[in-house]
Amino acid sequence: MSRDSKYDILFDPISFGPKTMRNRFWQTSHCTGYGSERPGIQAHFRGMKAEGGWGAVCTEFCSIHPESDEYPWTSARLWDDGDVINLGKMCEEVHRHKSLAGVQLWYNGMHSPCLESREVPRGPSGLPSNVFPDRTVYDSMADESDIKALINMYVLAAKRAEQAGFDIVEITGSDSTLPLQFLERRYNHRTDKYGGSLENRARFFIEVMAAVKRAVGDRLAVTTRFEVDTVNGDLRVEHYDEGIRFVQLMHAEGVCDLWAVKIGDYEEWGEDAGSSRFRKSNWMRPFIMDVKGVVGDNVPVVSNGRFTSPDDMVEVIRSRQSDIIGAARPSIADPFLPTKIETGHPEDIRECIGCNMCVSRMQQQALLSCTQNPTSGEEYRRGWHPEVFTKAKNPCSVLVVGAGPAGMECAVVLGKRGYDVHLRDKSPDLGGHWKDVARYPRCSEFARVIAYRQIQLSKLKNVEVHLGTKEMTAEDVLTYGADKVVIATGASWSTVGTGAEIHRPIPGADASLPNVLTPEQIMAGKAIPGKKAVVLDGDGHFTGIAMAELLADLGKEVTFVTNMHDIAQFSLYTMEMANNKRMLYNKKIRHMTNHWGHSYGNGKMSLFYLYRDTPELMEVEPGHWGRRFSDDLVELECDALVLVTMRVPNSGLYRDLVARRHEWPSHDVQDVFRIGDCHAPRQLMNAIFDGHRLGREFDSPHPQQPLPFIRERQIWGAPTYPKLGDTRPTVEAPLAEVLSA
Amino acid sequence: MSRDSKYDILFDPISFGPKTMRNRFWQTSHCTGYGSERPGIQAHFRGMKAEGGWGAVCTEFCSIHPESDEYPWTSARLWDDGDVINLGKMCEEVHRHKSLAGVQLWYNGMHSPCLESREVPRGPSGLPSNVFPDRTVYDSMADESDIKALINMYVLAAKRAEQAGFDIVEITGSDSTLPLQFLERRYNHRTDKYGGSLENRARFFIEVMAAVKRAVGDRLAVTTRFEVDTVNGDLRVEHYDEGIRFVQLMHAEGVCDLWAVKIGDYEEWGEDAGSSRFRKSNWMRPFIMDVKGVVGDNVPVVSNGRFTSPDDMVEVIRSRQSDIIGAARPSIADPFLPTKIETGHPEDIRECIGCNMCVSRMQQQALLSCTQNPTSGEEYRRGWHPEVFTKAKNPCSVLVVGAGPAGMECAVVLGKRGYDVHLRDKSPDLGGHWKDVARYPRCSEFARVIAYRQIQLSKLKNVEVHLGTKEMTAEDVLTYGADKVVIATGASWSTVGTGAEIHRPIPGADASLPNVLTPEQIMAGKAIPGKKAVVLDGDGHFTGIAMAELLADLGKEVTFVTNMHDIAQFSLYTMEMANNKRMLYNKKIRHMTNHWGHSYGNGKMSLFYLYRDTPELMEVEPGHWGRRFSDDLVELECDALVLVTMRVPNSGLYRDLVARRHEWPSHDVQDVFRIGDCHAPRQLMNAIFDGHRLGREFDSPHPQQPLPFIRERQIWGAPTYPKLGDTRPTVEAPLAEVLSA
Repeated sequence: MSRDSKYDILFDPISFGPKTMRNRFWQTSHCTGYGSERPGIQAHFRGMKAEGGWGAVCTEFCSIHPESDEYPWTSARLWDDGDVINLGKMCEEVHRHKSLAGVQLWYNGMHSPCLESREVPRGPSGLPSNVFPDRTVYDSMADESDIKALINMYVLAAKRAEQAGFDIVEITGSDSTLPLQFLERRYNHRTDKYGGSLENRARFFIEVMAAVKRAVGDRLAVTTRFEVDTVNGDLRVEHYDEGIRFVQLMHAEGVCDLWAVKIGDYEEWGEDAGSSRFRKSNWMRPFIMDVKGVVGDNVPVVSNGRFTSPDDMVEVIRSRQSDIIGAARPSIADPFLPTKIETGHPEDIRECIGCNMCVSRMQQQALLSCTQNPTSGEEYRRGWHPEVFTKAKNPCSVLVVGAGPAGMECAVVLGKRGYDVHLRDKSPDLGGHWKDVARYPRCSEFARVIAYRQIQLSKLKNVEVHLGTKEMTAEDVLTYGADKVVIATGASWSTVGTGAEIHRPIPGADASLPNVLTPEQIMAGKAIPGKKAVVLDGDGHFTGIAMAELLADLGKEVTFVTNMHDIAQFSLYTMEMANNKRMLYNKKIRHMTNHWGHSYGNGKMSLFYLYRDTPELMEVEPGHWGRRFSDDLVELECDALVLVTMRVPNSGLYRDLVARRHEWPSHDVQDVFRIGDCHAPRQLMNAIFDGHRLGREFDSPHPQQPLPFIRERQIWGAPTYPKLGDTRPTVEAPLAEVLSA
Repeated sequence: MSRDSKYDILFDPISFGPKTMRNRFWQTSHCTGYGSERPGIQAHFRGMKAEGGWGAVCTEFCSIHPESDEYPWTSARLWDDGDVINLGKMCEEVHRHKSLAGVQLWYNGMHSPCLESREVPRGPSGLPSNVFPDRTVYDSMADESDIKALINMYVLAAKRAEQAGFDIVEITGSDSTLPLQFLERRYNHRTDKYGGSLENRARFFIEVMAAVKRAVGDRLAVTTRFEVDTVNGDLRVEHYDEGIRFVQLMHAEGVCDLWAVKIGDYEEWGEDAGSSRFRKSNWMRPFIMDVKGVVGDNVPVVSNGRFTSPDDMVEVIRSRQSDIIGAARPSIADPFLPTKIETGHPEDIRECIGCNMCVSRMQQQALLSCTQNPTSGEEYRRGWHPEVFTKAKNPCSVLVVGAGPAGMECAVVLGKRGYDVHLRDKSPDLGGHWKDVARYPRCSEFARVIAYRQIQLSKLKNVEVHLGTKEMTAEDVLTYGADKVVIATGASWSTVGTGAEIHRPIPGADASLPNVLTPEQIMAGKAIPGKKAVVLDGDGHFTGIAMAELLADLGKEVTFVTNMHDIAQFSLYTMEMANNKRMLYNKKIRHMTNHWGHSYGNGKMSLFYLYRDTPELMEVEPGHWGRRFSDDLVELECDALVLVTMRVPNSGLYRDLVARRHEWPSHDVQDVFRIGDCHAPRQLMNAIFDGHRLGREFDSPHPQQPLPFIRERQIWGAPTYPKLGDTRPTVEAPLAEVLSA
């Protein structure tokens, strides 16, 4: 098949500076945790997107100098020759597929923790970082000689970028980086020619662009990513005030070949990487809509908006919102999104669900992974291709019990590999517990997890799906006639309040009573009695806060209680914490942290504070040393108690099968595996990965145990960069130049 | 000089299993962030301790299998041949100095986030981790076949340890690792022979020890580190209950060559790495005192206690508390502690101050550094030796203005390198602002920072210290006659409430008024008016909470207010968070998070909640998109407002000198540098590092800018481990064995 002609506009080439891009799909700079330290995974992850049709593929934020060291977060770096070699490998992979390689040059002054380099970043005013408020991260106020040095850093990094093979150097004018620190009144307290008026505050940014353009602009495209609105009130950038005025100023200087635009700042980059719980596709449009009018026809604009629909993309270009479709998360969920449109299979697009698990991995200082695309980040280290599956060595029949996300994923992979698969579930619908989740407030896009796999299953002739079956027993499984069995029976919320705090049931918290409810019971329609509700959250992800919102929307007076230090604590990593708190505040949901359930009864929830005991250790009784324990309690009126405490694996079927392991041979059952939440409850991303991996490695020597993956690390005896005693090319303005200035 | 004979006992050799240790100084397993991924820094960091006299030197926690993947925290690993090569380099460096190399074999089941390997850890009961409650980390409940596999993992890792060259394999029985998960009633919900009675719960631990001893015990010492008391109430381990009873049980089996003992668990390992704010030297003694009596004369005991005094160490051994002095932090602060005792220079010991900045680096997932010892972690990557300084290439005269920690450190290093140094300060005492800090509640041990440097300065004939001088002006500096100048004038707390939140003064918050105070003013004795006090903390480290405690101890009603998500948020990294919260609770100090000052006046502090605006973005006015802003405020009665909002660099002198740069040549001033808080305010560790580094690199081409350091990373083209397609040695019990069991 070939593409629908209505999508042709997405495949028109477009030029900027000295470069031409083959289509309109731009993989925006986005974090991965791979950096310059893991050249293989970086190159193959980005290269896969080029292979899948993204016309431009950028790195993550790329530090230009050790003064802007983002460690313990992993940025790309262009500090030295080692980085040139490593990122050069990425350029090679991207060029192999005729795409352009871009690098985002980044210097973050006051927001650079520098925990590896231990250097002192420079900035406009000598202020503490609001992004890392507890780490005592300040910039050192730059004088004019320092400003020359800073501009030199950008120039030298651009030259190293050229040496590595990049086509595009994008000067970050976003995420509150140095150009923005000069631009924003909040950060710029200067009184010299770099402070005061908008023109003065814009000077540094424009000088950097001009210097880089002079240095490499006839060979490389010199672009920016600019936040047109920081969405946080005055003293910052607002689109109707200094946002668009700055675009006018810089555009007039002719120093920018292309504008990639966004909203939000570094402290709240969840406004850029907006989760689907808070932001729907193309939410930035009203903020950035005026940029195209300012820069005119010859300078392309890139805009993002978690686009997964080709029709929406066409509309973005036709309405002159932008010329190019930027995407980070949709390109992670489906590196082949452009190819699928081009080849006439848009229904096969693995749509981003906006869960921000990708972001959460980076925020945890780990490696990027994706809920929808379990091959993300595994292209190099496990040799996985998202669209190519090796044929089974010894095809056989496989029974998969449980059609939740892990079971569906495993069945799809086994099906694509040529196994004869039966996927069975007692429910009349695919999706397992995720069907409930997709009906939580704000979570409707999460249903795409089910929809994508449903379509794939429907295309696989060798996979039969049996729904609404009776619940299978071990006897049923053993006599089913399958060569191999995969158990994917999921997990259920504890009905007795057991959680990670104490690991014991809470007296009186029994969900067989009318006043005590689990999320499953609520979604199944169990009545929620009375007015005052307590949600006890020991999970820390989205379920507890979703239950709290659901109850508040029903008019209940809700108190959200958690043992953790913060509400929905994992949302710090998904960049939803600030908006979660705004939601709680605006919906008048009270919250208590560091508390847990002592007991429930007679309409009262008794809570204890986790830190009520003494900090001191003492001889409490003769010979017994320890803290002096407190029995202080807090009591809340509580007509309905919602238990979001832990999930209990539905592992009975698997355990029954293991107990009858001696009978497997006589039933010609060769092996029994378990995947997903019945293996161990965990985030959906990991449950899907578990199912996918088992399918990929189904013919390995011991499929339940993963094969090794490549660990990119220094091995002793291999060369290091730099060598001890090396010097660094100086970026400092020489004394003579300073004296003559 | 040679050692005082009263310390001889510390240098007696001691044997355990097949090994003999040359003295009684044992560097306990401790985290670094170096792991198996940075072989050079790991080897030279540990090797330096062996050189300095530590008779046994251990790795950090060392994962035995990808199922126990601690990433994004960095553990050592013994997963494959690459790790054997890398840790082999450490063994080589340790052996070069005749010390024993130890490795702590670690499998953490339910507490393993596995963000790199994505594998599923096994454990006793299938429960969620209380250490990572928000990340949905659960173990998969092990059946008996899994238990065999787990024991196999320990054995295979012990064999790899032998291959790498280790002398000691320490099976972790601490930090809530798998053996403890089986042992503690909290975690062990089993009903088979591995659950129930203490004997059953101890079975797994003892079987692991026995299996490892069988495998390598005739060639390597097989030891444990055991937490005798988890200090957290029942269902765990208490010394007077199951703690000592377990020691009896395992000792009776004869499977443990040496016991290293501690208290605390993984959730609160701040009870093991007790900060000096909460725990004084040898705080564990009453908990672990009975172990020696159980295991008798032939099995040595190691105990820790942040020991820095040789007299205390002698008393520990003489009182039969333990045979060997364990130390982690004191060995970081001074790798040459044993040598300094041995050579008769105990006054030169760089004593650990118990600030836990070392721990904080690991907790931030970064690389270990030390406040007292700026060469820590820099042995390999910058080639620094803590006790050896290269002679100045071109000795000259140097004026250091400011005798706070950075100035003192720089003067010491320059002095040891042979420069002619004058260190001057207007104060009559050394130490700068750190003199105040050492008088905060609980912070008295921080004074060791000053004391150590004072002693070093007193020994340097070529360093003159001038105290109580008049404050130097630029004119004074230029005409002083020094060839080079170092400015170290520190920083002062903002007197107007400027902080990272908004970066603007708070109306009415003016410390020239009697009701508004800075920490410096409080320490200088400014009267604190009235009863109700508010501490506004925008710093997040220890100063705000110290002020709150100081005021509460004076009988004030204190409210601690911070813009951050949590109180004294950095204390999460220093492992002091839990005890900080206990202190606040027990002293009835109220706290409010995510609030900041709107204004102060008429005895009222007005605060705003950071998340009072809408989560939704909307067209607020025609053409103006954004949040709908709220003007909600919270008002507190406030007789005294304490501003801990930001520190303002005292950079006036430096700026005056820069402004007169054209005059430097005529005064024969060759260069002017700045270090410490006047460069940019930051944690003391970093300020001292700044002074140290400048001293080390004082004759580099551009001393204000650091030289490059070695970055150990994979360079594309170098080999990786494993190769794609490699298999892993199986640890699983074969089906035949399972069927026969």
